[in-house]
Amino acid sequence: MGDSTLKYPSDLPKSSRRFFLQTGVAIGGLLGSCTSKNSQNSVQNLGKVPSKYGQRSPYEESYRLVLPSSSGGSSPGGTPEAGLSRTPLQDSHGIITPSSLHFERHHAGVPEIDPNQHRLLIHGLVEKNLIFTMEELHQLPSVSRILFVECSGNSQTEWSKSGTTVQRSHGNASCSEWTGVKLSLILKEMGIQPEGKWIIAEGADACKMHRSLPLKKAMKDMIIAYGQNGEAIRPEQGYPLRLVVPGWEGNTHVKWLRRIKVVNQPYMGREETSKYTDLLPDGTARQFTFSMEAKSVITYPSGGHQLSGPGFHEITGLAWSGRGLINKVEISTDKGHSWQEAELQEPRLPICFTRFRFPWQWKGQAVTLQSRCTDETGYIQPSREELVKVRGLNTFYHFNGTKTWQVLPNGRIENVSI
Amino acid sequence: MGDSTLKYPSDLPKSSRRFFLQTGVAIGGLLGSCTSKNSQNSVQNLGKVPSKYGQRSPYEESYRLVLPSSSGGSSPGGTPEAGLSRTPLQDSHGIITPSSLHFERHHAGVPEIDPNQHRLLIHGLVEKNLIFTMEELHQLPSVSRILFVECSGNSQTEWSKSGTTVQRSHGNASCSEWTGVKLSLILKEMGIQPEGKWIIAEGADACKMHRSLPLKKAMKDMIIAYGQNGEAIRPEQGYPLRLVVPGWEGNTHVKWLRRIKVVNQPYMGREETSKYTDLLPDGTARQFTFSMEAKSVITYPSGGHQLSGPGFHEITGLAWSGRGLINKVEISTDKGHSWQEAELQEPRLPICFTRFRFPWQWKGQAVTLQSRCTDETGYIQPSREELVKVRGLNTFYHFNGTKTWQVLPNGRIENVSI
Repeated sequence: MGDSTLKYPSDLPKSSRRFFLQTGVAIGGLLGSCTSKNSQNSVQNLGKVPSKYGQRSPYEESYRLVLPSSSGGSSPGGTPEAGLSRTPLQDSHGIITPSSLHFERHHAGVPEIDPNQHRLLIHGLVEKNLIFTMEELHQLPSVSRILFVECSGNSQTEWSKSGTTVQRSHGNASCSEWTGVKLSLILKEMGIQPEGKWIIAEGADACKMHRSLPLKKAMKDMIIAYGQNGEAIRPEQGYPLRLVVPGWEGNTHVKWLRRIKVVNQPYMGREETSKYTDLLPDGTARQFTFSMEAKSVITYPSGGHQLSGPGFHEITGLAWSGRGLINKVEISTDKGHSWQEAELQEPRLPICFTRFRFPWQWKGQAVTLQSRCTDETGYIQPSREELVKVRGLNTFYHFNGTKTWQVLPNGRIENVSI
Repeated sequence: MGDSTLKYPSDLPKSSRRFFLQTGVAIGGLLGSCTSKNSQNSVQNLGKVPSKYGQRSPYEESYRLVLPSSSGGSSPGGTPEAGLSRTPLQDSHGIITPSSLHFERHHAGVPEIDPNQHRLLIHGLVEKNLIFTMEELHQLPSVSRILFVECSGNSQTEWSKSGTTVQRSHGNASCSEWTGVKLSLILKEMGIQPEGKWIIAEGADACKMHRSLPLKKAMKDMIIAYGQNGEAIRPEQGYPLRLVVPGWEGNTHVKWLRRIKVVNQPYMGREETSKYTDLLPDGTARQFTFSMEAKSVITYPSGGHQLSGPGFHEITGLAWSGRGLINKVEISTDKGHSWQEAELQEPRLPICFTRFRFPWQWKGQAVTLQSRCTDETGYIQPSREELVKVRGLNTFYHFNGTKTWQVLPNGRIENVSI
């Protein structure tokens, strides 16, 4: 989509012009610039020399939100190693999440693993068991994909409408370029026995976190990833190996991957029975709800932001679907009575964050802001009310309802808890 | 393109199987995994807790190569602030360059700029001059693009065939997701006087580095960028503002951008006269050679790598063109006599790194490896000989010939200086 759809208003340059006229800075000619006395932003001394590995500016203060495990949801026992940290989506640009700010969810902390000692064992109902070194995996044919990873507990605050900031409500979702080996390539080569229908993927952390996953998905698109955003995968994301399961809940993307066993049925471990199941109103529970449904959220302006004043503001946010492409994002500024289409940044990629933008003229009134998305299957992100009608309020995971922000007349953005 | 084109050989699993049988590790059942004594990679203790801003593993040792300015090319006076550092492409995965490893080229070091004090002045042959604060720029309609940036001095080692590693020969090229405001949006709003044909873009570093650029390009696709790979642009890349000029030589992407002046002709500054011009065999010089021509290079295996032994190895590398999409990459293992098509990772994006891969069976013999690319204009990357025929050997910038690596019988990869 081109810029032609943007309704760029005429009042911003006036505002800037006012600023310029007020300050009355004297503008020097460019030819004399190297010695000019233009005081607006003049650096007179040589700066820092090139470095081996760069860091961000000391003026930047955007951090992951590390929550005590007692408020983290699933680990009330006060074990910080079984905690989480959330991505500051309110400060995000584009679709890539910096690896340093990718959300974390650990069950036994981040192990420090020597890649030279690390091994991946693949065994069970296969023709022959294999152990791979990292060097052997690096030698194999590789693929790269830009994919989101989202904890299925993301947005659980929204069952109670308590997410005060987008970092609290939606910060358990991030997006990276992952590089590694297709699991299908290895499994095809090894040969699967006819009764093999599931795999168990196990991590090397102290709790040996593991999940049962259908073999069919493994053969479709799982990646044994060693690269993230162009360098080795980060320790918090599974260094040196992570199982990437495109579009499925984050917990299935087993970190510090040490073992894949091909089996004939799921193992009904902790992470697929007491956890990561959804209790429904009729008392039954959904199990193996792997796929992350379409979701969107406005990241700017969002809870905690302060608008400088009436006038033009760009509304922007992120949308994603575990089932493929995002085809449409709509914005409502009237509590969902009417919707207008946002611009989607190209290229849109399947199972990837899609950045949306919407030009908005704020007149200084109290107003609500909402987004909803449609994915390529035609599925439309539901309202919270529609979701609760089906799932009730005893469920914890897989909230994907719309999120509403309240703009107050003073420009402050707040969560709407009504 | 699918995996069907990959000629995945059968000997790798045998090799792994040998490893497995030799070590004879006893494989425990998964159900007992949490207490198993599987010693291959067992972590028994709780790991680190979630953190605010992650770092990479202490086992990772991939760094930018900081060269003394005497060997950096254009700054023989021993001023390290006018130096450079190169991206370790030999360790790269996918297309994104981690911001910490993005190449650097500074003319007066990296200034430390307070974004709250920084201003962008736009003036000259416009209807009204404007000064923007960072907050005002953030308020404007934004765009994101994944784009490479390449110093036009990249690969200058190849005029003399002296690039011993891909980091030395091609490490002045990197690729990021950039986010910011289209310069055309602001200029259209401000109004350009009829005689305005060029812009001068000036940085806030101590030397006030500046370049003359055609207004036409500014109106086409230049971006005033404040975001890089999802967070604020890094200090070495121009924090808090950089002019991104898609597909044009890196020097035009003015960092620490403080001023844009619309003028009627180029200013013939240092960076477009004594530097960044190309002396041709007939004694004349090319000037304003902005666009980066199509180039490709094999990043693995490349100079300094050591193959573990004969058998399957994936050849991989990067291709890019300042003129748009990469449509084809070919590999030769016989000094350019025959070429075979490599697989290109989708999505391919215009003016962006394209990752290519080629399955290769090494039989243990001495062999040369080369890549060449074709972009969407039909332009084919030339051999060094073809390039020298046209440009001679007195030129410094804009080398885009093919690069040849030599595989020795012992598996060592070296630069070919013949």
